[in-house]
Amino acid sequence: MIIIMVPQTTDEHVEGVVARLDELGYGHHISRGVERTLIGAIGAPEGEKEMVAEQLSVLPGVERVVPILKSYKLISREHNPRPVTVHIGDAPVGGGHFAVVAGPCSVESREQMVQTATAVKEAGAVGLRGGAYKPRTSPYSFQGLGPEGLEYLAAAREASGLPVITEVMDVRQLEGILEVADCLQIGARNMQNYDLLKEAGAAGKPVMLKRGFASTVEEWLKAAEYIASSGTLDVILCERGIRTFEPTTRFMLDLGGLAAARRETFLPIVADPSHAAGVSSLVPSLALAAVAGGADGLLIEVHPRPDQALSDGPQSLTPALFAELMKRIRQVAEAVGMQM
Amino acid sequence: MIIIMVPQTTDEHVEGVVARLDELGYGHHISRGVERTLIGAIGAPEGEKEMVAEQLSVLPGVERVVPILKSYKLISREHNPRPVTVHIGDAPVGGGHFAVVAGPCSVESREQMVQTATAVKEAGAVGLRGGAYKPRTSPYSFQGLGPEGLEYLAAAREASGLPVITEVMDVRQLEGILEVADCLQIGARNMQNYDLLKEAGAAGKPVMLKRGFASTVEEWLKAAEYIASSGTLDVILCERGIRTFEPTTRFMLDLGGLAAARRETFLPIVADPSHAAGVSSLVPSLALAAVAGGADGLLIEVHPRPDQALSDGPQSLTPALFAELMKRIRQVAEAVGMQM
Amino acid sequence: MIIIMVPQTTDEHVEGVVARLDELGYGHHISRGVERTLIGAIGAPEGEKEMVAEQLSVLPGVERVVPILKSYKLISREHNPRPVTVHIGDAPVGGGHFAVVAGPCSVESREQMVQTATAVKEAGAVGLRGGAYKPRTSPYSFQGLGPEGLEYLAAAREASGLPVITEVMDVRQLEGILEVADCLQIGARNMQNYDLLKEAGAAGKPVMLKRGFASTVEEWLKAAEYIASSGTLDVILCERGIRTFEPTTRFMLDLGGLAAARRETFLPIVADPSHAAGVSSLVPSLALAAVAGGADGLLIEVHPRPDQALSDGPQSLTPALFAELMKRIRQVAEAVGMQM
Amino acid sequence: MIIIMVPQTTDEHVEGVVARLDELGYGHHISRGVERTLIGAIGAPEGEKEMVAEQLSVLPGVERVVPILKSYKLISREHNPRPVTVHIGDAPVGGGHFAVVAGPCSVESREQMVQTATAVKEAGAVGLRGGAYKPRTSPYSFQGLGPEGLEYLAAAREASGLPVITEVMDVRQLEGILEVADCLQIGARNMQNYDLLKEAGAAGKPVMLKRGFASTVEEWLKAAEYIASSGTLDVILCERGIRTFEPTTRFMLDLGGLAAARRETFLPIVADPSHAAGVSSLVPSLALAAVAGGADGLLIEVHPRPDQALSDGPQSLTPALFAELMKRIRQVAEAVGMQM
Repeated sequence: MIIIMVPQTTDEHVEGVVARLDELGYGHHISRGVERTLIGAIGAPEGEKEMVAEQLSVLPGVERVVPILKSYKLISREHNPRPVTVHIGDAPVGGGHFAVVAGPCSVESREQMVQTATAVKEAGAVGLRGGAYKPRTSPYSFQGLGPEGLEYLAAAREASGLPVITEVMDVRQLEGILEVADCLQIGARNMQNYDLLKEAGAAGKPVMLKRGFASTVEEWLKAAEYIASSGTLDVILCERGIRTFEPTTRFMLDLGGLAAARRETFLPIVADPSHAAGVSSLVPSLALAAVAGGADGLLIEVHPRPDQALSDGPQSLTPALFAELMKRIRQVAEAVGMQM
Repeated sequence: MIIIMVPQTTDEHVEGVVARLDELGYGHHISRGVERTLIGAIGAPEGEKEMVAEQLSVLPGVERVVPILKSYKLISREHNPRPVTVHIGDAPVGGGHFAVVAGPCSVESREQMVQTATAVKEAGAVGLRGGAYKPRTSPYSFQGLGPEGLEYLAAAREASGLPVITEVMDVRQLEGILEVADCLQIGARNMQNYDLLKEAGAAGKPVMLKRGFASTVEEWLKAAEYIASSGTLDVILCERGIRTFEPTTRFMLDLGGLAAARRETFLPIVADPSHAAGVSSLVPSLALAAVAGGADGLLIEVHPRPDQALSDGPQSLTPALFAELMKRIRQVAEAVGMQM
Repeated sequence: MIIIMVPQTTDEHVEGVVARLDELGYGHHISRGVERTLIGAIGAPEGEKEMVAEQLSVLPGVERVVPILKSYKLISREHNPRPVTVHIGDAPVGGGHFAVVAGPCSVESREQMVQTATAVKEAGAVGLRGGAYKPRTSPYSFQGLGPEGLEYLAAAREASGLPVITEVMDVRQLEGILEVADCLQIGARNMQNYDLLKEAGAAGKPVMLKRGFASTVEEWLKAAEYIASSGTLDVILCERGIRTFEPTTRFMLDLGGLAAARRETFLPIVADPSHAAGVSSLVPSLALAAVAGGADGLLIEVHPRPDQALSDGPQSLTPALFAELMKRIRQVAEAVGMQM
Repeated sequence: MIIIMVPQTTDEHVEGVVARLDELGYGHHISRGVERTLIGAIGAPEGEKEMVAEQLSVLPGVERVVPILKSYKLISREHNPRPVTVHIGDAPVGGGHFAVVAGPCSVESREQMVQTATAVKEAGAVGLRGGAYKPRTSPYSFQGLGPEGLEYLAAAREASGLPVITEVMDVRQLEGILEVADCLQIGARNMQNYDLLKEAGAAGKPVMLKRGFASTVEEWLKAAEYIASSGTLDVILCERGIRTFEPTTRFMLDLGGLAAARRETFLPIVADPSHAAGVSSLVPSLALAAVAGGADGLLIEVHPRPDQALSDGPQSLTPALFAELMKRIRQVAEAVGMQM
């Protein structure tokens, strides 16, 4: 890291910083410019450098500290430069394989799940999504069917052959979910629920990590590092839109952030146009944009009767609209050289 | 709620909406204007109205649905118009009582805690803060001392007589924390960790709920409703800044949001200028602004040696600076008629 | 518009609102629900309705006023449901025609312009961009060549045959710019410079209106309405990214907003991936995403020597990279049925 | 500035950067760390350093360029460390003097202006605000009375003795406005209308510069530098709230940004709680917060009949409410040692 001193810094202040670096086991390197003195700290032991940067920034005469290294390593391109393929059940995601996972927001009934699974599979989806546990902003909203929902997910998997991805919100749900899920989903609201990340990372299944809607790309990658450092590199990142001042869409799909994350990590990255759009009529545009913009897959909400959905009806496609969209997705995927 | 139809709506579409309202047990009221037809839905059973609004918005001919009622009730002014006082230990917060809670970000050692507690008490703080469990963006950062930290909190409470507030991040920590804490803190990253909110609300202690840094005032109030509906109205809200495009401060303290929340709820609302500022030199301005702007108290980070803090050193005041700030806080609190 | 009264509204308050509506020449319609009384105002004369909504919201007993109608009309789908084609010189934009306009941020020299124009034309661009007047955040930065720059633009047009689009920042520049430009550009910083919008709209040339980086889609459309109401419907909207908390990209390209705007207006909408990305390596992903996401064209920064550009070098593609990108753009455009 | 090279940088790349620095007339300083090589550029001529940083960032092997110096100088504390007092007419603002400027959003009639001016003066305001030219998001909204409005402003000044501050939106309005205004106001939407900034700075009157609602503190200071470099240091900064995702208030008053700006510049900084709040009931809280938070003054909207205001009625205080607020402002100003 680089320590930038204030304009009128004194020798005493510079010596203070140097003494502290010494004490912490760092080497240093002083550079006196016309207007500023800079001190380079040499050798930053992993895991302490953010703390050390904070501590140094408080010393007298220090204007600011500029970090140089990244805070994630296991998931970084520096660790493994080549994109990898993660499998949800037997469906490959990433490394040239484009995967569409579809299904309702909430698991509502056995029929709903079996019907949806069969329909999305026929249209070309390779995975089934659906929540048995649902994070809802109001305590008075439908909170998911829980264990009963897991049962319906299992039935839908059985009927369709599609692998299942479902959200885990609390460590206590993990055991039940692991019996059914082929891939665990960490939702946007839990991206920084670190205890949950650690347990999910140690559970022995792939994990799909949604980006928090107020999280930076860097924080998202650090959250993935939590999972990776807990035991698995089978992590799929999912961009689902961030919060901005614009009220037209529910969230803003950050395809620039997706592209930027790809430069940093070898993990597959998919996009969720449904939660970003918030309304089904905008889902196709965002879905196609994500395909051309470099996503490795899509998570799309499909419900047989959006006007009767217990959650997220407005952003759900009917099976018919989904099938139509799949055709267009295939054309764009082909145009950008992805395999589906 | 009001259903606004598209400009060229047909009688058939209007009848479709009416039939659905009927089916759901709502009355209705049709108003045909020059350019739009509106349908008022009469009688919305609590807990379903968001789902119903979503379902109606999907019907043919519907442009949008405008909700009218709030989604929280136990904590609302309509439920109880008068501000209440919540006690942390024996320290009153709200209802005219201004309370300052101070202490380090992380519990680091017995000495650090006892020394800080004694110092902040002498300066006028009525509560001690400090985290034994810490949510950290990097898995390689210091994660808190855990049970050992709780022990030091207990020692500091013993030595200073100050009641203790500390963060709970995971339901499994709750039992241990309840032995020590006079008030549970739910951190910003967990504001929408609904399982945790429910457990905290049922734990039998007051709960301080920090606003998520990407949460609206409405979502914050709904999260408080989760706690209230789980068993306690002893909830203190804490505004600690939201995320914006401005890089100068770590977060932006939303004093307008604090004032807006006060119109909606009778719960006390405090502010945390330390996390908003991100740097200690800006803490005093924000602290004084919050006092004059109508907060019921402050949460301030104080560390005996900010340059050696294991977390949040840059935003921590020394005990001496804190004591100086307390004098100014007292003057402003007095000017706005608060009791300290 | 709908006036929603507070829960405990009185007959007197309702009568007050009705009297005011009467006075303003509106009809009304009262609907008394279980928890709220609503008053529908019937017949809102264009141009006054925002003011009237504001005035009514201040009356005693009024909780809020919900507007129903849009604030733009000339550019709306209600006015003209079919997409139109706008021509920059003889290059069609919109209505199925996909147009790429390319060139440097700033006009720097005759050679730079001629060389760039020739290169981008060969790669398939149908228009040339380049600023003779530049809005720069620092007064000490290069401010554009002014009239000399216009001359070089003319030379490049002559040499390449490409029509020219260039930014007007101040009404006093308009006369000179009109001699050279085939299309006027209003930059993001001037989207709400209303006097400039009016003059540009009356100038007799097509106008490309960039979205302000902190403007909502609705404000953008209202700004376009300023131009339209000043004399021309030859307006091209340009989405170029908005400001968010994410530091990775310079701005966030809002393709959901682009899709939403398309539902509202028949005007062509293009995207500027260069300003959104802020760095050339992310431009291709965003460019392709915009094509598949429904843009009618792209504005791309190209510079023969990005490392010597006087502005925006980091986000400029070299002519070689641009030519390569154009091939991929063509493939995606074809996949989504656009003509190039 | 510091050039940070990519991890696997080569000697050739380092030499390339050094050669370029040489060519540009900079000295350099190479520091080879364990994981990164850094190159310090020594001696950055004012006015070119942003361009040079951009150009260097494009060179092969460069990861990023970290600027060290600020982009403003005339208005910086490094240029003049002591706060200054700017006078609007004979009313001092800053340097310990707290000034309240009040009046309606729009000038609507002679009576309205005279009545408001007299009332706010009696309550303790030292300046009168009011717009003769109004930036309105819709072309169909009231656009201000223009020259007639200026006449009424002059009449109100005559009647009350209060100096007048009014907005200039276009260089062509400047001449007329200068005959009446004691202080020019640049509105938030024009903060980056650089031609206007230059003309205002050269006009010979003090200038109040509102922060753009999507502008960073740094951009705001750079905009002030435009004015300063055009001829006057009599600049007053005005924080009026920025745009965020929170819908409760119209804008979010950034008191942390105000405090941060104060560390950087000696210019007085006032706050506008009316535009931030967007609704009059929240104005007092934000006004008092700004006083305690370190503002040098306030800009407050007052209208004799908010329910008949042609613009901004909802956020306007009546003269009676304003007078009451002034008492509380005085108490808080006194508590923080400001003179009123």
